[in-house]
Amino acid sequence: MSTIDFSALDALDQRDPLADKRQLFVIPEDTVYLDGNSLGLLTHATQQRVAEVTRQQWGQDAISSWNKHQWVHLPRLVGDKLAPIIGAATGQVICCDSISVNLFKALSAALHLQRQRGEQQRTKVISTRDNFPTDLYMVQGLEQLLGAQHCHLQMVEEADLLTAAEDLFDAETAILLVTEVNFRSGRRLPVAELIRKAHAAGVLVIVDLAHSAGAMPVRLDEWQADFAVGCTYKYLNGGPGAPAFVYVAQRHLGQFVQPLAGWFGHAQPFAFEPRYEPAPGIEIMLSGTPSVLAMAAVDSALDAFAGVDLAVVREKSLALAEAFLQQLAASGLATEFECISPAAAERGSQLSFAHPQAYAICQALIDAKVVADFRAPHYLRVGFTPLYTSFRDIGVAVEQLTHIMREQTYLQPQYQKRHAVT
Amino acid sequence: MSTIDFSALDALDQRDPLADKRQLFVIPEDTVYLDGNSLGLLTHATQQRVAEVTRQQWGQDAISSWNKHQWVHLPRLVGDKLAPIIGAATGQVICCDSISVNLFKALSAALHLQRQRGEQQRTKVISTRDNFPTDLYMVQGLEQLLGAQHCHLQMVEEADLLTAAEDLFDAETAILLVTEVNFRSGRRLPVAELIRKAHAAGVLVIVDLAHSAGAMPVRLDEWQADFAVGCTYKYLNGGPGAPAFVYVAQRHLGQFVQPLAGWFGHAQPFAFEPRYEPAPGIEIMLSGTPSVLAMAAVDSALDAFAGVDLAVVREKSLALAEAFLQQLAASGLATEFECISPAAAERGSQLSFAHPQAYAICQALIDAKVVADFRAPHYLRVGFTPLYTSFRDIGVAVEQLTHIMREQTYLQPQYQKRHAVT
Repeated sequence: MSTIDFSALDALDQRDPLADKRQLFVIPEDTVYLDGNSLGLLTHATQQRVAEVTRQQWGQDAISSWNKHQWVHLPRLVGDKLAPIIGAATGQVICCDSISVNLFKALSAALHLQRQRGEQQRTKVISTRDNFPTDLYMVQGLEQLLGAQHCHLQMVEEADLLTAAEDLFDAETAILLVTEVNFRSGRRLPVAELIRKAHAAGVLVIVDLAHSAGAMPVRLDEWQADFAVGCTYKYLNGGPGAPAFVYVAQRHLGQFVQPLAGWFGHAQPFAFEPRYEPAPGIEIMLSGTPSVLAMAAVDSALDAFAGVDLAVVREKSLALAEAFLQQLAASGLATEFECISPAAAERGSQLSFAHPQAYAICQALIDAKVVADFRAPHYLRVGFTPLYTSFRDIGVAVEQLTHIMREQTYLQPQYQKRHAVT
Repeated sequence: MSTIDFSALDALDQRDPLADKRQLFVIPEDTVYLDGNSLGLLTHATQQRVAEVTRQQWGQDAISSWNKHQWVHLPRLVGDKLAPIIGAATGQVICCDSISVNLFKALSAALHLQRQRGEQQRTKVISTRDNFPTDLYMVQGLEQLLGAQHCHLQMVEEADLLTAAEDLFDAETAILLVTEVNFRSGRRLPVAELIRKAHAAGVLVIVDLAHSAGAMPVRLDEWQADFAVGCTYKYLNGGPGAPAFVYVAQRHLGQFVQPLAGWFGHAQPFAFEPRYEPAPGIEIMLSGTPSVLAMAAVDSALDAFAGVDLAVVREKSLALAEAFLQQLAASGLATEFECISPAAAERGSQLSFAHPQAYAICQALIDAKVVADFRAPHYLRVGFTPLYTSFRDIGVAVEQLTHIMREQTYLQPQYQKRHAVT
């Protein structure tokens, strides 16, 4: 009946060097979860850690936990734990706030660096039109605040950035804001090459690693990135809306200020001085008091990456995607679903398919306990998270998708109705 | 032996209309906790809620929880639950980010409102020199970003603001940034009167309610406050570093933009449009993705305020403070500890005492399981949180303090050594 060759998939699972990692995670019951690119799953350890921080640290040790349980150092401890995952030496990464807020700091800091270099005319921020919208919005927010003469966004086509970056970087360009993996298409941009070209033109680069960190090798130091931001709630499994991270290259620390100058970013927060004096290190990127519950979850989640080679993660990610495409073809669905993601080498850890009924199909899949997601206007996204996605998962997912398409289940009215979050 | 009249204190506890609320909280074992003004205690309900959000919502329902468990609406739901506690009608309060980050939004928004009114020359932000430092730092951060010609901080003495506010508000003054209760001294400023005077001079007012919200009646709408920010981890018991809140008066909504224009503040976040269009309501103050674990804790913690009259909270708070002062006098310590907090009517929910050995005394108290806190340079703070502080607690606290002073326990070397967080 089924066209899926489960024995071949099981054989792949048996050879999988990451197979043991799956047991660290709470896998939703009877569910194939292909949405770790939107919200990573909970680990058993994190569930315990959150309970412990709540019950013992907050509940019993209360205020003393700021010292006793190192709450005050969590942003830096988590940052340093995250650093090797994104190819950064210690002291350059800190966990705090959201990507949006961290981008505002990084954008302001990079503009400040340009002015420090005497490059006042560099006021333009280049980013791609189909970047994740919050990245574009934050530049627009800064533009509105400072005036276009001090900061303005130029949206370019991704294709133009890929083929003719040199022509885009002119004497007015201050910053290239680039997301490594496109959230819709899954296209992976050649960040190292873009940084080289940007630097050659005097342009600073902020890299958004939302869909990269934890999914593939990232080499911020080697690439000579200037700033980076990223998300801990996707491939890093930090929890819904978990605090983000921000990276600043060592060579820039001490050379700039950032405007969200909250007390946690002060050189001596507990001296309670009325004048702001920025911390000399990466703590300059901190602003207000961080959420301990949220950050403790991230800290614990990162332990799942202990001993993990990101090159192996990448290899499995591509193998999972390849298996998905093969099973889709074997099920006769390859022509119906237009894969808008590029070939393996130029792709992140997801496949995106265009289909006019993508929304309803996604809802029907979720009801069949295969969790993928939808992105406007008509894309079905399938994410691969090598730490817990199995090859058998892929078979079940395609089997269910095949069933839904044959039976046209997605036409049922309950699948056509839109939710608040799509 | 003890000079404490515990039977009189027990009688006060028996007459306490809020006595039943204490059982909602996890009281640290054998401990008298007088630091709710720094970190409020955990409720049993919040402990369960955090476990449930972790185990079931994140662990099992995963991404679907954004709709299924209303994660996407939490910032507004929490804001509306908080609104009556601070005297605000619904639709004006939202829970997100930190006080620091929210202040940046409010400061920028208020400056924008002044420009919209044609008051470009109003560029000055007035605040008191001994305001909580992060409030001052955020103005300094904005000043550094915009240039002093567009925004500059004038620090004034609290006494001058109290006696001659009219003289301080000139034609260049854009904003008064005032914290209702001084974190060091516990002085409660006459916010309603200051707002009247500010408005008469064309000045907008941002009120920081960090040490007010949940501790006493606050009447933002009645006062005609323009903006307010506040903390949920003190008297509101939302958890360490819990998300803050921000209030915008209804009359201002739709009239301004704020620069931290993240996707959650967009009119249609899930349309993923490249151009930012602010939400028409209070959601304009949102920026990036909020932490669900952290915000669910706040949501649950606020339930402890169900049916609570803040006037009763205030009355008990003052009675607790009065009991503390009485017991201190009865124990012969009143002259040794200089109370720098003003009289009841002009005071928040804390007492602050100056003592050259305040730090060490505070450490010795904590070791004796009486948790107070220290603020630089030499203040011992004692906070009263009427939902869980009992009159008997006050007796135990003063008894231990008396013992420490008589035995000079605080001179022991371990109490003299400073921690990271003081």
